[in-house]
Amino acid sequence: MQKIRIYLHQHRGRFVRELCEYLRFPSVSADARYRRGLGACAKWLTAHCRKIGLITELCRTRGNPIVMARTPRRARSKNPYYLVYGHYDVQPPEPLELWKTPPFQPRIVGNSLFARGASDNKGQHFAHLKAVEAYLKTGTELPCDLTFIIEGEEEVGSPSLAGLLRKHRTRLRCDAVVTSDTTLLGLQYPTLSYGLRGICGLEITLNGPSCDLHSGTFGGSVENPAMALCQMLAQLRDEKGRITIPGLYDDVLALSPFERSALAIHPFNADDYKKSIGVPELFGETGFTPVEHRSARPTLEINGLTSGYQGEGGKTIIPSWARAKVTMRLVPHQTPEKILALTVAHLRKLCPPTVRMNITSSPGSDPYLVSPESSKVQAALDALRDAFDCEPLLAREGGSIPIVDEFKQILKADSLLLGLALPDDNAHSPNEKFNLEVFAKGMMMSAHLWRRLARGQRTAEG
Amino acid sequence: MQKIRIYLHQHRGRFVRELCEYLRFPSVSADARYRRGLGACAKWLTAHCRKIGLITELCRTRGNPIVMARTPRRARSKNPYYLVYGHYDVQPPEPLELWKTPPFQPRIVGNSLFARGASDNKGQHFAHLKAVEAYLKTGTELPCDLTFIIEGEEEVGSPSLAGLLRKHRTRLRCDAVVTSDTTLLGLQYPTLSYGLRGICGLEITLNGPSCDLHSGTFGGSVENPAMALCQMLAQLRDEKGRITIPGLYDDVLALSPFERSALAIHPFNADDYKKSIGVPELFGETGFTPVEHRSARPTLEINGLTSGYQGEGGKTIIPSWARAKVTMRLVPHQTPEKILALTVAHLRKLCPPTVRMNITSSPGSDPYLVSPESSKVQAALDALRDAFDCEPLLAREGGSIPIVDEFKQILKADSLLLGLALPDDNAHSPNEKFNLEVFAKGMMMSAHLWRRLARGQRTAEG
Repeated sequence: MQKIRIYLHQHRGRFVRELCEYLRFPSVSADARYRRGLGACAKWLTAHCRKIGLITELCRTRGNPIVMARTPRRARSKNPYYLVYGHYDVQPPEPLELWKTPPFQPRIVGNSLFARGASDNKGQHFAHLKAVEAYLKTGTELPCDLTFIIEGEEEVGSPSLAGLLRKHRTRLRCDAVVTSDTTLLGLQYPTLSYGLRGICGLEITLNGPSCDLHSGTFGGSVENPAMALCQMLAQLRDEKGRITIPGLYDDVLALSPFERSALAIHPFNADDYKKSIGVPELFGETGFTPVEHRSARPTLEINGLTSGYQGEGGKTIIPSWARAKVTMRLVPHQTPEKILALTVAHLRKLCPPTVRMNITSSPGSDPYLVSPESSKVQAALDALRDAFDCEPLLAREGGSIPIVDEFKQILKADSLLLGLALPDDNAHSPNEKFNLEVFAKGMMMSAHLWRRLARGQRTAEG
Repeated sequence: MQKIRIYLHQHRGRFVRELCEYLRFPSVSADARYRRGLGACAKWLTAHCRKIGLITELCRTRGNPIVMARTPRRARSKNPYYLVYGHYDVQPPEPLELWKTPPFQPRIVGNSLFARGASDNKGQHFAHLKAVEAYLKTGTELPCDLTFIIEGEEEVGSPSLAGLLRKHRTRLRCDAVVTSDTTLLGLQYPTLSYGLRGICGLEITLNGPSCDLHSGTFGGSVENPAMALCQMLAQLRDEKGRITIPGLYDDVLALSPFERSALAIHPFNADDYKKSIGVPELFGETGFTPVEHRSARPTLEINGLTSGYQGEGGKTIIPSWARAKVTMRLVPHQTPEKILALTVAHLRKLCPPTVRMNITSSPGSDPYLVSPESSKVQAALDALRDAFDCEPLLAREGGSIPIVDEFKQILKADSLLLGLALPDDNAHSPNEKFNLEVFAKGMMMSAHLWRRLARGQRTAEG
């Protein structure tokens, strides 16, 4: 590793310049005005991959092209085989007036590189590319075969990726997928995310009278759909913060003592947290910690409420209807299908005969879990330890990453989520940035990772 | 009464033509484009009152003029003195495309006179004017002194009326106010409304996190303001349909056995009612009838709910805030001030520490009640019986009529509410109409009323 370490150190300035060049492309996938920026960005990335020694392919899709780049592979290689996933598209930069300098003119202040896409996700996958460059340019044998899949539609829901995975299902069958697109809790807290929550959603509409009624003339003799909705929703959560839908917790895999102690050492200060989100007190299910609440427990959230008159002043009506948008975060081994069915059945029981209920649901996604005690996770933790020179954290992500589910469904591959974005990197916000010390450590982490994974695999097989 | 009956019968055709003339004025108070129509209408009405023998005064206000017209009064008259209230302004006619014929071109089909303002309120107070005309033109002694107060801003909240009442407080001190601006349940069900509900309102906002939060990253550790709001509101009504705010029923005057039997004979068919408003089942407080629910019991209605994302599809957020608009209908002897105070105190108890609550309230109006067993009410019922030749109904109105409250506050005068609008007269809607048989009976009712009131007063005093 000595040669690699030196190479990465010596070329650090150039790497940052190259990353700045990459960040100058306004590759905004959500906005049709940027379509050219996306195409040009994909071409630049393909050329760059070729330059560092990878075998590249620019795959056309119905949307933005996907860059595939693989390491040169010896015939009948018995090396472990990994995919590295990333995305070159970025969030829209708006509102522009909140940026201190233009979003597509990268600027370095201290250790921070400011630009749209700096941490989400160009900087993060660039670290992996540079680690591979170090192997290839120093003639060090790379102990794993790798294929980079860098798409241009992550910020709009990755509509083309599943098709590509299905088309190349055989050649992409791999040992696991490595993705750096999550959060690193701090420079002293390198983080591996071994679980994600799933999600499902529904929209509940209660229809009462055929039109808004005068609350004086009719009030008292007709159900108020907004009140009926409140009374139904209120019953979905008890005073301990638990969801009351019968059967909802049946399939929840309990946190192991190992996991609970791993989550317990996360840096967390309740006062700072309260202040950062602006709430007077935290909320949470009795018997669990805030870190567990945020990532490892099922939730039911009302995302929106609509009924009656919402303008200035008042209007004395009984609203004709009331609607709630609800989503639930799921944990292993809950499934969206079963949870939706239980929820709908329970709502039907709660609905009074004075209103008519209509429910629509969205398909959702499964929760994800890779055993934190598995050899691959342990190897990845070793790589984090090597690079950051401190004890890494195991985390669960509270959100859902649909592409992780697709890798699992289509390729049967687990994902190793090794995030390099700091919590204050302003992903999706103005003044997005990437920490250059994290960049340096991320490259080293990636370099160690292939060695650690290959060794772990040999040990596991031996 | 024979001469009056004959006069009213003989001139019926002319009265309808005169009413049509009155209805041709587009006296829409809510729309500045009609200001001229209002002025012309007030002038026409003043001239008409003068023509039938009244002493008139066109009172300027900051808004539309108020027509005052009084019967010639002998010096040192000891006659009872009544005000007759009405309004010459009308609701906007829009949407015009739903009218079968233009709203300000009166049209007669069978017994129905179609025009904007036909029943609300030109036709109704015109019946009183014509009854007085019959007394004056036939030389019959009118046993009461009367002042008509016909304003031009009722449909925009009567902003000028209170000032006029205060200014002329002494000369307007009267025995009671007669108003025909409520509902008559049917030609076989002439109706006297002896009570009105009051109202008060509040807007409750729960503030949670300082901005909408990602429901994956934060969900489970932060209170959802929409859920907190639902849980608070849900607790305001129990499974018996009663409001749970402590003390809310303390001042409620129980319905007397006399009232309950009077309300019990109202024509009411639950199936027809359900069908007409389009609900699968009726709702109502246990122990009371639908007629009582609608008019004689306190209510708490959610008029509007707002929180989070309300557009198409979904958005996985914990909303930063949630808001409800709530109004309560009050019955004698509840007061808006006390009910608001009780409600706010109760909400403060229910509010969890995880959110910040902000409440604003609107002043509201008092409920109103005149004893249905009082001599004036009995006299009015006699007049209804005389004119309609059947047993009249006693009713409470579920809504609130602010001017009734103002007559009570400023002049200490009760109101006799003798509605002449049928439930299907389309007040405030396209194709508003007035039933000409009700018009004829209304004129006779008014003629009888002054006789009955004067006699009742003499009996009460004797």
